[in-house]
Amino acid sequence: MRMYDIIQKKKHGAALTKEEIFFAVQGFCDGEIPDYQMSAFLMAICLKGMNEQETTDLTLAMAKSGDQLDLSKIKGVTADKHSTGGVGDKTTLIIGPLVACAGVCVAKMSGRGLGHTGGTIDKLESFPGFQTALPTEKFIENVNTIHFSLASQTSNLAPADKKIYALRDVTATVDSIPLIASSIMSKKLAAGSQVIVLDVKVGSGAFMKNLPDAIALANTMVAIGNRAGRMTYALLTDMNQPLGRTVGNQLEVEEAIETLSGNGPKDLTTVSLRLAEWMLVGCKKATSVSEAEKIVRKLLFGGAAKEKLAEFVAAQGGDPSYVSTPQKFPKAPISLVVTSSKEGYVARINTEEIGISSLLLGGGRETKDSVIDLRAGIRLLKKAGEKVTKGEPIAILYGAKEESLAAAKTRLLAAYDFSELPPELPPLIYGYADADGFHPETQASFESKA
Amino acid sequence: MRMYDIIQKKKHGAALTKEEIFFAVQGFCDGEIPDYQMSAFLMAICLKGMNEQETTDLTLAMAKSGDQLDLSKIKGVTADKHSTGGVGDKTTLIIGPLVACAGVCVAKMSGRGLGHTGGTIDKLESFPGFQTALPTEKFIENVNTIHFSLASQTSNLAPADKKIYALRDVTATVDSIPLIASSIMSKKLAAGSQVIVLDVKVGSGAFMKNLPDAIALANTMVAIGNRAGRMTYALLTDMNQPLGRTVGNQLEVEEAIETLSGNGPKDLTTVSLRLAEWMLVGCKKATSVSEAEKIVRKLLFGGAAKEKLAEFVAAQGGDPSYVSTPQKFPKAPISLVVTSSKEGYVARINTEEIGISSLLLGGGRETKDSVIDLRAGIRLLKKAGEKVTKGEPIAILYGAKEESLAAAKTRLLAAYDFSELPPELPPLIYGYADADGFHPETQASFESKA
Repeated sequence: MRMYDIIQKKKHGAALTKEEIFFAVQGFCDGEIPDYQMSAFLMAICLKGMNEQETTDLTLAMAKSGDQLDLSKIKGVTADKHSTGGVGDKTTLIIGPLVACAGVCVAKMSGRGLGHTGGTIDKLESFPGFQTALPTEKFIENVNTIHFSLASQTSNLAPADKKIYALRDVTATVDSIPLIASSIMSKKLAAGSQVIVLDVKVGSGAFMKNLPDAIALANTMVAIGNRAGRMTYALLTDMNQPLGRTVGNQLEVEEAIETLSGNGPKDLTTVSLRLAEWMLVGCKKATSVSEAEKIVRKLLFGGAAKEKLAEFVAAQGGDPSYVSTPQKFPKAPISLVVTSSKEGYVARINTEEIGISSLLLGGGRETKDSVIDLRAGIRLLKKAGEKVTKGEPIAILYGAKEESLAAAKTRLLAAYDFSELPPELPPLIYGYADADGFHPETQASFESKA
Repeated sequence: MRMYDIIQKKKHGAALTKEEIFFAVQGFCDGEIPDYQMSAFLMAICLKGMNEQETTDLTLAMAKSGDQLDLSKIKGVTADKHSTGGVGDKTTLIIGPLVACAGVCVAKMSGRGLGHTGGTIDKLESFPGFQTALPTEKFIENVNTIHFSLASQTSNLAPADKKIYALRDVTATVDSIPLIASSIMSKKLAAGSQVIVLDVKVGSGAFMKNLPDAIALANTMVAIGNRAGRMTYALLTDMNQPLGRTVGNQLEVEEAIETLSGNGPKDLTTVSLRLAEWMLVGCKKATSVSEAEKIVRKLLFGGAAKEKLAEFVAAQGGDPSYVSTPQKFPKAPISLVVTSSKEGYVARINTEEIGISSLLLGGGRETKDSVIDLRAGIRLLKKAGEKVTKGEPIAILYGAKEESLAAAKTRLLAAYDFSELPPELPPLIYGYADADGFHPETQASFESKA
C-alpha cells in the first residue's frame, strides 16, 4: 500500500477502505508518512468529502492511535457529554453532578481552555485544592463511589488527532465536517464511555455558524458514535450569545452553583437540563425525554445535584465549603461597570468578542503556557432582547490591570448591537439528532422547556 | 500576507492575485513556506483550478525564480520548440537545422532523458566530441553565426518549478492542467525565446491520453505564452505509437539524418515540417503555414537542412562527418530480430511499453545517475495499420546483454496488438491552437501534408 495511491484515490473522490485509512493515520502517527503527503490528503478530504463509513474508520484509526480508557471496572452505564465549544458554556459543572444523582456513571476526561473558550479543568481549579491529575484507579474508584469523576486528558489520548489537528491548523484544512467530526469523536471513543451526548453549538459564536452545517456535523458525529457501538445523541443549541450571564472561570463556577441552587439563568438551566435528560435516556434511566425531565428537575430544584457537586469537589481534594458558601471565592482586585451610551433593545452580542474581552482581562490563555487569572471575567447584565436605557449598566468587568479593563471595555461595547424594536431571537434549542437524523424542536416542546 | 489565507482562498475556489501567487512561489523557493503548506495548496489548485491569469502569474513566478536567459544580443527573432514528451520523438534534430536555414534563430536549452522518454542532449552526444555545456557567450555567438545552438539546461533555470515538481510527484498533484502548463512554460519563458511552438502529444503514449485534455493543455500554454509577451502556437500530434521507426539515442539520430536526406518516415517528416512551418510563421519568415511549407520543403528536400546539421555539430565540437556518413556510427554488440507469432494488421502499439523495452536494452535512464548505452534501442519494422504475416520480422532490438534483449523482446511482443481487418487509425495531426483557441485539422489539409 502506498500513501501516493491513497491521496490519488481521494483526490478522484473515491471512497477509501478501512485498511487504507488506518494505513494513512498509523503511518503519519509513526512518522513514516511525511507532513506534506498528509496535508495534500487532508486537502483532498476537505474538497472531496468522506462518507459515514470512511469518517467512522478515520475516527477509529485516530482513537486507536494511543491510550484507550478501559472503563470496564465501572459498575453501571457510563455516559459522556461534549460541547463543540462556546463562550460561557459551564454546563458540565451542572450536568455532571445532576446525572450522577440519577445513577449515571460519569467518567469524564476534560481539557484546559485555549484562546477565548474556557476549559472545564480551569474552571474547577477555582476550588482550592482541587486535583485533576488523577491516577486511573482513583478516577475509576470515584466513579464507583459517587458516580462522577473528572480528570485532565492524558497526552496520549488520540495522539494521531493531535498531530493531524496541528497540521490542519496551518494548512487551511480545518473546516471539513468529516475532519471536525472525527477529531471530536476520536477523543470521545478513546475516553471509553458507552453513552455520548453532544452539544453542537450553532450561531455566530460557534464553529458552526448556521443550522444546516450544524445539522450535518451532528448527524455525522451521531453516525460515527453509533457505528462505533456507542449510544450517541446530539442536541443543537444556540451560541449567538454567551450561555448564561458569566464568562470567566470562577464567575462561571459561581453561576453553575447558582443554577444548581435553582436560581440560574433560564437559558443555562434549560440547556443543562435537556442535555442531562438525553444522558438519562441514553443510559436507560428514563424511557423518554419527558420522563427524564421529571427526574432531573426534581434533582436540580430539590438540591440533590448541588450536594453532589460538593461531594465531587471533596472527592478530588477540593474545598466543598465553597459550594455552600460561594461568597468565599476571592474577588478580582478591580472591577468596572460598563454602561451603555446607546438606547434600545440588545439586538445581537458578538459572542467571540465577549470571549476575547474575557481573554484580555486575564480569563483565558493566549498561548498554551499563559497563566490564567481565575477571578477575571465578565458578568453580562444585559443579553439579547433586553431593553437598555442610555447610561444603564450592561456588564461588569473583573480583572487585575486598569489597562486590560479599559481594552476589554472597548471591545465589549463594540460587541453589543442595539435595535429600536425588540429583535427576533433565535431558538435556544434547535432540535436533536439521533440515529434517525435530525428532529427539529417543536414550538410546543420549546416553550414547555423555557 | 499569510500562506494560510492563500491556501484558504484557493480552497474556496477564488482567483488569486499576482501578489499572492508570487508570495507563495518565492516563499516556497526561499524555504520560508514549508512543504506541507505548499502541498495543501497544490491539491487545492488540482481540485479547484486556476484561471488563465492565475496560471500565467504562476508561470511567471516560477520563471523568475532563477536565471532568465538574456537573448538580446542575438541578431534576429528567436524561436523555441517544445514537445510534451513521447517515444521516438527526434523532431528537434530535424527542425533546429531546418528553421535555422530559413533565418530563424534557435537558441535552445534542452534536458537529458529520464525514464522511457529520451532527451535531445543524450541523442546529440552520439556525435563523438559533441559538447552541450556551453558558456553563454559561445551559445549566443553560435546562434549569431549559424542560427542554431543547443545547450544543456542550467540547474538554475526555474528552480521553483523543479522544487514544486518534486513535491507534486509525491503528493498525487501531477495531473492538473494549470500545474502542467505552468511547469512547462516557466522553463520556456526563462529560456528567453520570443516565439514558442509547442508539440502537444495526444494518445496512449502521451501524458494527455485524449483530445479534450490535450486541447485544454494546449490552449492554456498558448494563453500563458501570449500573456507573457511571447508569440505562442501549439500543434496537437499523435502519440498512439512511437514517432518514426526508431527508439534509442543513436538510432534516432540516424533516422533524423535520413529524414534530413529526404528519406525519413512519413509521420516524422510531416510532424517535423509542420512544427517548422509554425516557427517560421511565428518569426514572420512566412505569412502563412502554406507559404512556410514551400520554404521548409525546399530546405529539407534540397539538402540545405542536412548541411546545417553538420555545421551545427561541428560548431559544438562534434564530428560532422557522421552526418554525411552515418554508417560510421558504432553498432550495438548484439541485435535480435523479433518475429511475429501472430498474423493480421497491427491494430495498436502500446507506446509506453516500447519506451520501456528500449530502457531495458540500455537506451534510457532508470535513475538520474544511470549511464546510457547510446547504441541501444529498437527499430520498428511494422507500425499501426501495417499487415504482418506469421513469422515476419516486426522489430530489431539492439543492445549489449543477451538477457536484456530477451526481456525487451517479451515486452515488445506484448506491446503489439493485431486485428483481422485494417484498423481505423487516429490522425497524425489533430490541429493547432493559437490565441483564438483550437483549430481542428481539416481532412483536406491533413491529406495535403501526408
